[in-house]
Amino acid sequence: MKNKKVVLAFSGGLDTSYCVKYLKNEKQVEVYSAIVNTGGFSEMELIEIEEKALRLGVKQHVTLQETEAYYDNIIKYLIFGNVLKNNTYPLSVSAERIYQAIALANYAKTVGASAIAHGSTGAGNDQIRFDLIFQLIAPELEIITPIRDQQLSRKAEIDYLAQNGVGVDWEKAQYSINKGLWGTSVGGAETLTSNLPLPEVAFPSQLTETVPKIITIEFDKGEISGINGEEMKPVKAIQTLENIANKYAIGRDVHVGDTIIGIKGRVGFEAAAASIIIKAHHTLEKHTLSKWQLHWKEQLGSWYGMFIHESQYFEPVMRNIEAFLQDTQENVSGSVSIALHPYRFIVQGITSSHDLMTPDFGAYGEINKNWSGEDVKGFTKVLANSMQIFKHVNAKG
Amino acid sequence: MKNKKVVLAFSGGLDTSYCVKYLKNEKQVEVYSAIVNTGGFSEMELIEIEEKALRLGVKQHVTLQETEAYYDNIIKYLIFGNVLKNNTYPLSVSAERIYQAIALANYAKTVGASAIAHGSTGAGNDQIRFDLIFQLIAPELEIITPIRDQQLSRKAEIDYLAQNGVGVDWEKAQYSINKGLWGTSVGGAETLTSNLPLPEVAFPSQLTETVPKIITIEFDKGEISGINGEEMKPVKAIQTLENIANKYAIGRDVHVGDTIIGIKGRVGFEAAAASIIIKAHHTLEKHTLSKWQLHWKEQLGSWYGMFIHESQYFEPVMRNIEAFLQDTQENVSGSVSIALHPYRFIVQGITSSHDLMTPDFGAYGEINKNWSGEDVKGFTKVLANSMQIFKHVNAKG
Amino acid sequence: MKNKKVVLAFSGGLDTSYCVKYLKNEKQVEVYSAIVNTGGFSEMELIEIEEKALRLGVKQHVTLQETEAYYDNIIKYLIFGNVLKNNTYPLSVSAERIYQAIALANYAKTVGASAIAHGSTGAGNDQIRFDLIFQLIAPELEIITPIRDQQLSRKAEIDYLAQNGVGVDWEKAQYSINKGLWGTSVGGAETLTSNLPLPEVAFPSQLTETVPKIITIEFDKGEISGINGEEMKPVKAIQTLENIANKYAIGRDVHVGDTIIGIKGRVGFEAAAASIIIKAHHTLEKHTLSKWQLHWKEQLGSWYGMFIHESQYFEPVMRNIEAFLQDTQENVSGSVSIALHPYRFIVQGITSSHDLMTPDFGAYGEINKNWSGEDVKGFTKVLANSMQIFKHVNAKG
Amino acid sequence: MKNKKVVLAFSGGLDTSYCVKYLKNEKQVEVYSAIVNTGGFSEMELIEIEEKALRLGVKQHVTLQETEAYYDNIIKYLIFGNVLKNNTYPLSVSAERIYQAIALANYAKTVGASAIAHGSTGAGNDQIRFDLIFQLIAPELEIITPIRDQQLSRKAEIDYLAQNGVGVDWEKAQYSINKGLWGTSVGGAETLTSNLPLPEVAFPSQLTETVPKIITIEFDKGEISGINGEEMKPVKAIQTLENIANKYAIGRDVHVGDTIIGIKGRVGFEAAAASIIIKAHHTLEKHTLSKWQLHWKEQLGSWYGMFIHESQYFEPVMRNIEAFLQDTQENVSGSVSIALHPYRFIVQGITSSHDLMTPDFGAYGEINKNWSGEDVKGFTKVLANSMQIFKHVNAKG
Repeated sequence: MKNKKVVLAFSGGLDTSYCVKYLKNEKQVEVYSAIVNTGGFSEMELIEIEEKALRLGVKQHVTLQETEAYYDNIIKYLIFGNVLKNNTYPLSVSAERIYQAIALANYAKTVGASAIAHGSTGAGNDQIRFDLIFQLIAPELEIITPIRDQQLSRKAEIDYLAQNGVGVDWEKAQYSINKGLWGTSVGGAETLTSNLPLPEVAFPSQLTETVPKIITIEFDKGEISGINGEEMKPVKAIQTLENIANKYAIGRDVHVGDTIIGIKGRVGFEAAAASIIIKAHHTLEKHTLSKWQLHWKEQLGSWYGMFIHESQYFEPVMRNIEAFLQDTQENVSGSVSIALHPYRFIVQGITSSHDLMTPDFGAYGEINKNWSGEDVKGFTKVLANSMQIFKHVNAKG
Repeated sequence: MKNKKVVLAFSGGLDTSYCVKYLKNEKQVEVYSAIVNTGGFSEMELIEIEEKALRLGVKQHVTLQETEAYYDNIIKYLIFGNVLKNNTYPLSVSAERIYQAIALANYAKTVGASAIAHGSTGAGNDQIRFDLIFQLIAPELEIITPIRDQQLSRKAEIDYLAQNGVGVDWEKAQYSINKGLWGTSVGGAETLTSNLPLPEVAFPSQLTETVPKIITIEFDKGEISGINGEEMKPVKAIQTLENIANKYAIGRDVHVGDTIIGIKGRVGFEAAAASIIIKAHHTLEKHTLSKWQLHWKEQLGSWYGMFIHESQYFEPVMRNIEAFLQDTQENVSGSVSIALHPYRFIVQGITSSHDLMTPDFGAYGEINKNWSGEDVKGFTKVLANSMQIFKHVNAKG
Repeated sequence: MKNKKVVLAFSGGLDTSYCVKYLKNEKQVEVYSAIVNTGGFSEMELIEIEEKALRLGVKQHVTLQETEAYYDNIIKYLIFGNVLKNNTYPLSVSAERIYQAIALANYAKTVGASAIAHGSTGAGNDQIRFDLIFQLIAPELEIITPIRDQQLSRKAEIDYLAQNGVGVDWEKAQYSINKGLWGTSVGGAETLTSNLPLPEVAFPSQLTETVPKIITIEFDKGEISGINGEEMKPVKAIQTLENIANKYAIGRDVHVGDTIIGIKGRVGFEAAAASIIIKAHHTLEKHTLSKWQLHWKEQLGSWYGMFIHESQYFEPVMRNIEAFLQDTQENVSGSVSIALHPYRFIVQGITSSHDLMTPDFGAYGEINKNWSGEDVKGFTKVLANSMQIFKHVNAKG
Repeated sequence: MKNKKVVLAFSGGLDTSYCVKYLKNEKQVEVYSAIVNTGGFSEMELIEIEEKALRLGVKQHVTLQETEAYYDNIIKYLIFGNVLKNNTYPLSVSAERIYQAIALANYAKTVGASAIAHGSTGAGNDQIRFDLIFQLIAPELEIITPIRDQQLSRKAEIDYLAQNGVGVDWEKAQYSINKGLWGTSVGGAETLTSNLPLPEVAFPSQLTETVPKIITIEFDKGEISGINGEEMKPVKAIQTLENIANKYAIGRDVHVGDTIIGIKGRVGFEAAAASIIIKAHHTLEKHTLSKWQLHWKEQLGSWYGMFIHESQYFEPVMRNIEAFLQDTQENVSGSVSIALHPYRFIVQGITSSHDLMTPDFGAYGEINKNWSGEDVKGFTKVLANSMQIFKHVNAKG
């Protein structure tokens, strides 16, 4: 190591608390702890995490506020692409990890660290997301992963911390919860089976509102520009919508998917804002885009989501797909009306000056005049040609 | 015309009643009326339609019972492909029309008719579905479309019928309803706008059951083989499920899509069984198929649905896609548990001996032993290679 | 018609000469003849065509010089996309027709015509290309197609012209030749069969150079920027290359493909410059683009070519695909060396500062150090995971 | 190790000769050497290799004759899919390695070995192909890779062999040549650069025939069934064609592609039979398949080739793609005529009773009667609809 500075991705939990002590005591390095906020933490929570870090003896702690950048660089394109992994999961955690890794690597370069550490285990997707992004942005930095390397049990970590004067009561939550701008994931217990659903209590947001309500989301060139007619920046709008909709316990489901390392995984999630926004945006697109734009957006959006999920954010094709998606949004402007009900929502309809269903009447009349029943007969005959020839040529004996 | 026999697709409504009289009186032909039942009609309804036809003076009337064949040739593949047009619509009407056209054309050949008539107008998809399929199966038959050709108003039709002794009271329903094995479509009124939702009353099935219930669907190689543990043939199972689930008003939505003739259309639907079956089947596949099987099924299933919708059922590639889809279903066997709630359902989980998430424990342990944290590090390094080279080569001066 | 002005797409051949007389004499209109040069005509040929038009009595004749615009709006993207229809045909004629139709429609609007006429027959693709583009750009103009509508024989046209004082000797060429910037098509005789090849004499360019020669093509962000080290604008470079390479009789083949109207068609072509440029550009891309960029370019480039061929140039998705293709070309710069031989060429190799195969040595060493045999073992183990689980779970008995 | 039996993939070259001695002397095991013949070896060569193995002291040596099985399980589908990696390379080596690995793993199971060894280095694709396939077919076997693990220089291997009494003169060939049923690869020297072409001498087959010749290839449901009208089994036909065509030095090129481990690689090849067969088969398909069959075959064939290249032969989706490809070949029967010239060939044409271009005349007339100029006008109008509405709605103010 060229110096003693090690940046540590710190969440305040048991694993990363262990890492602080381990790095300081066993590796004799200066720990620069950092937490990346991509919309999941309140100011109070961030202060508590900072205090914890300092109590554990880090040299310095920072909160990297990256919610806006996260939206601009990833979430925006997930909306443009209507990305729901396997038609279900808005990639709440996957997308966030990518951006957190980017922010951490850039921070490590800024402070001139010689290594970067994270607390991932060897069993999941996150280790690959962190390792891969770190290698790409800061290939000169060593990567340290104490938890993965030592394969410690929870108890061993707690004992080590206790021996080092950290006597916190590390209660194990029944579910592991990860919260961010684009949704909250819920893992553990039932999600480790194939057949059991998550119980009501597993979800952080509980149903507190039962009176149906109608809201509107405004879009401008594919980006959210307002809620209920009030202009808002996208991040603010997503947060506002989340606060309204999660009281209805909307956007819950369980995703079953392929991890990067080839095994199947199952994870619960609640993502009220993400679920509503993607269905609303998609509906607006069905009114404003052509058939083949919708077709190709589906292909490219699905691929984009898969590569985000699998940490291939820096594959060069991702920039090309973003250029494609951006270009499709030129006319995706208008307002979408949504009815909120307990546990569900209904897209009621849209209004848009680009609506291909509702041209002004004069013009609509003209367009209608463009084709007659005879034209449709001709259309059908020509459309049948290739199939008719095929059938004729290949008719049996 | 080589003879006077004309087969007429007859539904008992105003348009096709007009066609009977028009064909008899103005064209001087013998009308062979036929109705194709693809699961939407009760025995009582079919008897009433037959009586109507005979009263109007058809030479002969038949009911073509095609529900099983419709399932075997189309619905089965829509399930294999998890087909939801634009991620929403199970193609309830589109798929049915294709099969009805096939049955009618075959019937016309059987009776040796010289023409085949249908009552479609010149504005929608159905005219193309009928014309195209008729041309392919029975190119030797003339196609007669009085309503499209004469562009008559409702009133003109009623007057003509009255003049010809048919004094029925033709009440205009507020919504045009089309019911079949794979769901019911609801058109008219609000669906002609972009912004209005369908009201509760527009849907034929009303909420009558509010106590949640858990059911199971069993699949055998991708096909439904039972409900709640009771073995059933697929058609029976779909009907049984529909009767259970539509009491919860499940599976309602509005589809906005591209018609074959290039304009956008909006249609409401309720399809409790279809919605539940597709999500259940898809969930089972997420547990039993590989990542790339799921990927390619999505591409090919979506294309299959588009071509069904656009009447290109006889494009030769459709048979090849069916072969692909069939081949993917080898291991898609197991049971899916679903909770029914008013207006919604939750897939709770699956059990399957082919579940890639739950191999027996001994084996699972072995597989786990196959890779270590070090292996994952190696994996990540090699995975990063191409992106690292790209970044290195293209780094700015 | 609001006035008597009719713009006629005029080539100087029998069909369009007939159209001039027919429009003047039978329709009593003023004929504004126009020829669009997209790189296929010499100055001398254009003067002769103009004189012919004036002799036939047109009110006014113009040559629309559109070669540069044709390159900028279409050819550029065909190169970016390495478009060869069915891996064979560079779309020499299809692409040209689209752009000619655009230029004609814009010209008709400029002169305030009330109709636009073309001499296409009812059998091929061109009628649709013209009709469709005219309808989109100038929906207010009537479209007049005398040859298609009257289904006249060649002899009838010649007789009519003779009766109207045009006694030209209309020799029928054995092959119908269409020449443009992006290649020359050769139709007729053997191309109407499935089994006969075109003879040597059918091709306009004959082999006159037999000594092999090595040339280089320089590319800058995907566009041709020079030949043999000499800087040139793209159109000039294509023409220069064509003049060098067609002496070797390079780039000949026969394309068999699907027409827009559903029948199969066969057409010969020679396209020395287009064939060489696409293979050279593609080779440069194999060195400078990532695996997945190449993969997606193949999908989107192929679709782009199909829609150009089928006159769907104005489908909105085409603009989105162009944005994608443009974005992929950022690093496609360098020089490609090609050996020309009689009837064939060999891409010898490339040099590029973006070559992903040849980073500077120091760096290449570093990158090599990034992974070891152990890393590859880890990579392979993790890559095998999903397939191993699949095999284990689905093992028989 | 449960026993002392180690199966070694043996080619008779320096690396695998070293492995024999190393395994015997250092690992004290019994070496069961095996060579898999997938069409690249003559009987004489195989005898020499066997003698070498026995001289080196193997316990037992076998030749696994797998050419027919290789064709049946892989080559057949590469032909069905017209697979040319990046439109160039018929996967001569990649496909062979997969099948060799399968045969070796099965053999190791048959003899009850406890390990399997191969001589791959740590730099290329082959190590992954062997490791991955071995793990899937015989996960219970240890994999031993002395060359990769010890990273020995050529000289160190030669010295070791000399010390162990093997004094062969191991001349280093300038090019590394790999020959099989589906072509011969040529690596080394110029292929390690980006800009240099392979010289004439690098290719094993030299031009010895300069008089052009016309041959025919017969296909039956996509499989080669004869050459020049003489019925032959596919493997025999491929070999016969290779012997005719490689005298013309046909099918040479250089492939630049992405390796499995993320770096770019360049390899020369000559594959006369493969090049001709794929172009002939593809041409026959252009005449006998529909537009959309060709479209989807292109997607799936390209994916199939990529996965073969990247050793993912056992991804379950590969079986599904094979089912698709097989199903498309129903009508791909007929004869293709090809002219052979020095260094190049021309597909002259095809004859097939399934040719969609040449129905019998009476029928062709009928089909032609199916549509008129008016029908085409109607077709075009309806086709223009969506683009016209788009343009109208989105016209600027």
